[in-house]
Amino acid sequence: MSRIVMKFGGTSMAGMERIRSVAERVKREVEGGHQVAVVVSAMAGETDRLVQMCREAAPLYDPREYDVVVASGEQVTSGLLAITLQGMGLKARSYMGWQLPIRASGHVAALIEEIDVEVLERVFDENGIAVIPGFQGVTGEGALATLGRGGSDTSAVGLAVAMKASRCDIYTDVDGVYTTDPRIVPRARKLDTITFEEMLELASVGAKVLQTRSVGLAMRFGMPLQVLSSFEDRPGTMIVSEDQLGGITMERNVITGIAHDPNEARVTLAGLPDRPGAVAAVFAPLAAAGINVDMIVQSVLRAGEASDLTFTVPRASLAHSVAELKGVRAAVGFTDLLTSTDVVKISAVGVGMRSNAGIAARMFETLAERGINILAITTSEIKVSVLIHEDYTELAVRVLHTAFGLDQSAGADA
Amino acid sequence: MSRIVMKFGGTSMAGMERIRSVAERVKREVEGGHQVAVVVSAMAGETDRLVQMCREAAPLYDPREYDVVVASGEQVTSGLLAITLQGMGLKARSYMGWQLPIRASGHVAALIEEIDVEVLERVFDENGIAVIPGFQGVTGEGALATLGRGGSDTSAVGLAVAMKASRCDIYTDVDGVYTTDPRIVPRARKLDTITFEEMLELASVGAKVLQTRSVGLAMRFGMPLQVLSSFEDRPGTMIVSEDQLGGITMERNVITGIAHDPNEARVTLAGLPDRPGAVAAVFAPLAAAGINVDMIVQSVLRAGEASDLTFTVPRASLAHSVAELKGVRAAVGFTDLLTSTDVVKISAVGVGMRSNAGIAARMFETLAERGINILAITTSEIKVSVLIHEDYTELAVRVLHTAFGLDQSAGADA
Repeated sequence: MSRIVMKFGGTSMAGMERIRSVAERVKREVEGGHQVAVVVSAMAGETDRLVQMCREAAPLYDPREYDVVVASGEQVTSGLLAITLQGMGLKARSYMGWQLPIRASGHVAALIEEIDVEVLERVFDENGIAVIPGFQGVTGEGALATLGRGGSDTSAVGLAVAMKASRCDIYTDVDGVYTTDPRIVPRARKLDTITFEEMLELASVGAKVLQTRSVGLAMRFGMPLQVLSSFEDRPGTMIVSEDQLGGITMERNVITGIAHDPNEARVTLAGLPDRPGAVAAVFAPLAAAGINVDMIVQSVLRAGEASDLTFTVPRASLAHSVAELKGVRAAVGFTDLLTSTDVVKISAVGVGMRSNAGIAARMFETLAERGINILAITTSEIKVSVLIHEDYTELAVRVLHTAFGLDQSAGADA
Repeated sequence: MSRIVMKFGGTSMAGMERIRSVAERVKREVEGGHQVAVVVSAMAGETDRLVQMCREAAPLYDPREYDVVVASGEQVTSGLLAITLQGMGLKARSYMGWQLPIRASGHVAALIEEIDVEVLERVFDENGIAVIPGFQGVTGEGALATLGRGGSDTSAVGLAVAMKASRCDIYTDVDGVYTTDPRIVPRARKLDTITFEEMLELASVGAKVLQTRSVGLAMRFGMPLQVLSSFEDRPGTMIVSEDQLGGITMERNVITGIAHDPNEARVTLAGLPDRPGAVAAVFAPLAAAGINVDMIVQSVLRAGEASDLTFTVPRASLAHSVAELKGVRAAVGFTDLLTSTDVVKISAVGVGMRSNAGIAARMFETLAERGINILAITTSEIKVSVLIHEDYTELAVRVLHTAFGLDQSAGADA
C-alpha cells in the first residue's frame, strides 16, 4: 500500500460538478489501494476576489488579517470535498492548517516550517482520506498564515514529504509539461518525464505550470511530482531527480524544452569608462535594491577606452533600476542610459547538455540562418539563453524546437 | 470606561462600503471611551450560498464538514472589518472562535459552553478592538462548530456576558422593535424599551428581529440588549429586565405590542367520547412526537355525551400530527378529524397586564364589535392570544393596536 498526495487547483475545484469529478478521481486512487491525502485550492477566482476585498478595505492591509480573509477560500473547498467524498460512501474528513498543524513562518508569503503528521497517521490507520486546504498554515502565535499565491502546490509537496508519500500528483488545467508553448508550436510534445532542474529552468523562464517554490522543495527532498489534467484520463508529466530518471536518460533528447520569457528589459550604459571597479559600481546599487540582473554583455573596444555595458533586469524592476542607476551616474561616469522592453529571452533547457558539447553553437547557427540577431547570451550547466528582439519570438521558438528534435511526428499520439 | 459588544448583521456587512460605515460606528464608540468587542455576521446571502453548496455536495451532509464550510463567511467579514478599522488608525484584530476559544457543544446548532476572555482582557488592556466572527466556536475535540442560523446574535450576547459588558448592541436592518408590524399598521410605534419576557412573546409570535435564543440568554444573565439600525443614527429599542425598567414602568402602556402568527394550524376531533383519559390519549402521542400543542378548546355539551376538541399545532407539524392522531383514532374513539390552515393567532403582549385586569375582556369586545369570531383562546401572565380566521388578520391587528392605545399620534416623531 503506497501513500500519495493528490493536489487539485482552482479550476479543478470551480463548482460542485467539478468537485464531484475530483472526488471520483480520489475514489479511484483509494480503491486502487492508496492511502490518500488531498490538498485543494480555492475555487478559481475566489482568492482574487478575497484579495481585492482586502485591498478595498485598506490599501496597506495588515498581513495577519489578510491571511484570515484569504485562507477562507480553501477552507470552503476542503469542507465541500469532504462532504462529497462522504456522499460517495468514503471515509473523509477535512483538517485545517491550524488543526494538523502546518506550522508556517509568518504572513502572506510564509514558509512551511513543520508539518505534524500524527493526525494523518491515525486517519490512514483507519482507512480514511484526509482533505487539507492548501495555501494555509498557522504561525507559532496561533494566527492563520498563508503561503503566497500558488502556495497550494507547496502545501502539497510539503505534506507529501512529511507523510513520506511515494508521489505527489498535481492535478491542473493542463495535461502536463510541454516541450514548449503549444500556442506557438502546435507540434509541441508533452514530456513523459522532466528533471527538477529542467523544470525549474523552464518555470523561471515562462512555462508556469507549478509554483517554482514547490519544485525546489520537491527537488530538495527527492519527492517525485506528477503534473496531470483533472479533466482528462491519461498520464501527465513526471518530475523527478536525474537519479530517478535512471535508464530513461539514454533515450531522452539532449534538449528537453524551449522556453521564452517576455518579462525582461534591456538596459545599456553607453560610454562606461574603462577603469577598475566601474562595472561593480553599476551593479552594487542594483543588488542592494534586490534587483536581479540576468544577462550581461560588455563590449570593450580598446584598452583604456570607454565601452558599452548591456544587461537585463526583470521588466517590473526597470523603473526602479533606472532610478538607482541615475543615482550613480556621476560617480560611475557613463554617458548615456538606454533602455528597451522590446526584447525576449529564449532558452533551450536540458540535462543532456552536460554530456553534449555544441548545443550553444547549434542554437546560434539556427538563429543566424533565419537572420535573428542575438543581443545577449547567458548559459548555465543545463541551459542556454539568448536575448533577441521580441518580433522574432515565435519564429525563434519554432526553429529551435525543430532543430533540437522536439517536434512531434505528424499524426503521433500526444 | 464601560464595555460594550456591538453586533452587526449580514445586511450591515454586505460589501466594503457598508463595512466602512460599520467601522465608523465602531470608531465613534471607541472615541466615546468604550472598550469594544465587535461581533459580525457573514455578508448577506453568503451563508445561504455556502449552505446550498453543502446540500449540493451531499443531501445528508456531515455536520462537522458543514460547519467547516459555513463558518468561513464570518471569518471573511471579521478579517475585512479588522483591516478597515486599522486603515482608520484604530488598533483592531480579529479572533476566530477557535482562537479565543469559544467552546461549543457540537455541530450545526451548537450551544455555547464557555468563552475564554483572557485574550480579550489583554486586548482591552492595550486599548485594542476585538473583532469576532459570530455564529462560530470550536468543539472540545478542536473541530469548527457553528451555532445555528441567526447564531451571531447568541455569540454577541454570550460574549457580552463573558466579558461583563454593560450592554450588547445589535445593529440590524430595522431601527428597533415596533408595537406591531408596520406593514399592517402604518401608525405602529417604535418602542423605547421592552422587557425580555415581552420580547420573547413577540418574537415567538412573529416579530422576528432577534434570534429567540439570544433573548433567552440575555434574560438569564440580565444583559441589556439594544436593537438599532446600522443605517440610521438614532437610538433603537432597549431590551431589559423588568427590574431594569425601573421607574419607566409607571408610564408604560399596559400592552406593549400586538403580534400575529400565521404559522398555526387548527385540528378538530369531533365526537370525542366523554370518559376519563380521552383527552390525555389524544395529546400523549403528539407530545411523544415532539409536537407543540398550543391553544386548546373543548366543548362539552352535556355530561356523558361526546364533545368536540379543538387545538392548534405548528403548521409545519400538521401532517405529522394527523398521522399520529389517526394512529390513536380507534383507541380514543373520536368520529371525525378536521383540519384547517386558514387561521391566524393574534396576541396582545405586555408586562403591565399583571396589574391590569380586564385586558382579555377588552380584546374580545374589540374583536366582537368588528364581527370577528374567536376560534380559540390562550393566555399567559403577560399575553392574551386568540385564534381567528386569517381573512381578519389585518383588521384585528389594527383595531387592537388602536384599542390598546398603541397608535402613534399623527405627526409625532417615531
